Amino acid sequence: MKNKKYIRKKAKVYTAESLIEGIKSGNFTALSKAITLCESKKPSDRDMASTIVSACMQIENNSIRIGITGVPGVGKSSFIESFGLHLIQAEGKKVAVLAIDPSSERTKGSILGDKTRMNKLSIHPNAFIRPSPTSGSLGGVAHASRESILLCEAAGFDVVIVETVGVGQSETEVRQMTDFFLLLMLAGAGDELQGIKRGIMEMADGLLINKADGDNLKAAQLAMREYRNALHLFPKAKSGWTTQVGLCSALENTNMDVAWNMISAYEKHSKSNGYFLTNRKDQLDSWFQKSIEEILHQKLFENEKIKADYHFFSNKVISGSLSPYDAAKQLLDGFL
Amino acid sequence: MKNKKYIRKKAKVYTAESLIEGIKSGNFTALSKAITLCESKKPSDRDMASTIVSACMQIENNSIRIGITGVPGVGKSSFIESFGLHLIQAEGKKVAVLAIDPSSERTKGSILGDKTRMNKLSIHPNAFIRPSPTSGSLGGVAHASRESILLCEAAGFDVVIVETVGVGQSETEVRQMTDFFLLLMLAGAGDELQGIKRGIMEMADGLLINKADGDNLKAAQLAMREYRNALHLFPKAKSGWTTQVGLCSALENTNMDVAWNMISAYEKHSKSNGYFLTNRKDQLDSWFQKSIEEILHQKLFENEKIKADYHFFSNKVISGSLSPYDAAKQLLDGFL
Repeated sequence: MKNKKYIRKKAKVYTAESLIEGIKSGNFTALSKAITLCESKKPSDRDMASTIVSACMQIENNSIRIGITGVPGVGKSSFIESFGLHLIQAEGKKVAVLAIDPSSERTKGSILGDKTRMNKLSIHPNAFIRPSPTSGSLGGVAHASRESILLCEAAGFDVVIVETVGVGQSETEVRQMTDFFLLLMLAGAGDELQGIKRGIMEMADGLLINKADGDNLKAAQLAMREYRNALHLFPKAKSGWTTQVGLCSALENTNMDVAWNMISAYEKHSKSNGYFLTNRKDQLDSWFQKSIEEILHQKLFENEKIKADYHFFSNKVISGSLSPYDAAKQLLDGFL
Repeated sequence: MKNKKYIRKKAKVYTAESLIEGIKSGNFTALSKAITLCESKKPSDRDMASTIVSACMQIENNSIRIGITGVPGVGKSSFIESFGLHLIQAEGKKVAVLAIDPSSERTKGSILGDKTRMNKLSIHPNAFIRPSPTSGSLGGVAHASRESILLCEAAGFDVVIVETVGVGQSETEVRQMTDFFLLLMLAGAGDELQGIKRGIMEMADGLLINKADGDNLKAAQLAMREYRNALHLFPKAKSGWTTQVGLCSALENTNMDVAWNMISAYEKHSKSNGYFLTNRKDQLDSWFQKSIEEILHQKLFENEKIKADYHFFSNKVISGSLSPYDAAKQLLDGFL
């Protein structure tokens, strides 16, 4: 052992230009590395990420972005495994899967979960699976996901799936970065505890009842009819599209074509009436507004005077000697 | 008709001091006028509101703040009418009711609705009912409601009820400005469409199944047992309190004491373990943070250069020639 030489590999140095070239040529390592920059909070990383994203935005593509949500236990990962393989094998697509999870505690589980549950998809050369960032605010995580979508598209992925991992918080964010929002549900009792609120159903462009197999098939068919009736009561979506309801079984790998036909029909519908493009522009504009708020917030708390004064005013507020609004006004007098 | 004299009443001039004195003496007109200032967007009104709020915060009181939510049709207004009258008549309380509704479209209906549905409570001298502000962002509306709560308390109201009027958006805000969060529910089929998501159930300190009367009583009893079982699966609340489930009928005016006993038990529990006060302090601190963000945002869009540049950058983003993050950074370079 004495004479054994330890050879330390020299860390490869990436530049924005080399990563852009790598992404354009479909290199997975370059794509991963660039996404890591998007997820970073380091200013130099963020600047580099921004350069890459701006370059990637110029690369034409014809992608569709699909948001997928549903409560834990509905079988999201198995569905994405089945659906992703269908898209690759039957439709000739390249599929990227991103997860978004604002709760860092749950994330550790989901990384392991994604890797083990999507075991066929994750090793397919036409698929790219990226677990959710391990930390950060929902705003930060969503920002990184928006950038990651653009990078995946520049790398040639024509279907980008964004999966909500946490419960309740991230649906609106995912809806705002995708073209089509798919809600997975289960048939049977206890639906009121499944986290399905009217607001989320209203967001959905498609609703699939998963685990429609074996003994569960009849209940799933009944649920499908019920949801179809229920959806009639909902106000019409801005897209002019009527939410579709279908059945599938990720376990038995059935009706994956139903899912894809639903999404293709939506794409055709929304491209022909102009909503597809309008929606993408609205999403860019709202991302712009969110970026403004984020940068403002960040600059504020980098300011030395704010850092020094913050606790002084916070204590005054908590002790009841100053109203929160007055305290905020006085704190900001030192900044603006 | 020719000789008829039109007498124009001279508009009464209010000062912050006169309104503070009026509120302290329990004058409803002064209270209403001050709440209107809290809801205003005019800087001079906001300053005056701030002075009044800071003064009112100093007035000791022993109030409890109750948030009430539930989907349309659950009977929120009838419940508040019944419950409010019970508190006044059986418990000797003074009751203020505030509504919070971020969707201005629905508000017109709710103002009319509040007045007609709470017809006994609204004319009782120990009750004060304030419809929700007619416009503004959720943030602005919530800010006004937080201030209004403090004003009502200074005016001697010992129970302040904050009712969510809109669906899905305002629950979290109302939870963050109250001590006890009550979820009204209905028994029977279709619960999954009632807007009850796990997240909202998790927020609730108490759950009341309304319309537990007549033919509906059995279903309500069954639902009560089911919810009690279901709540066992939920993680323990930070307060250490176990969510209570009960039945009531606003129509038949039954079990209003059950509702009050639930809330009183919570108050006793959370005051004895210190959570009551900790929670109020946390709420003040989070209100402080929100005020900072609001003022920053407001100052930004008052800035002439930002106003002039905003559309230039927004157009670059929408046309895809600049990433949202880069655009936001460049826009803010002119401000900070």
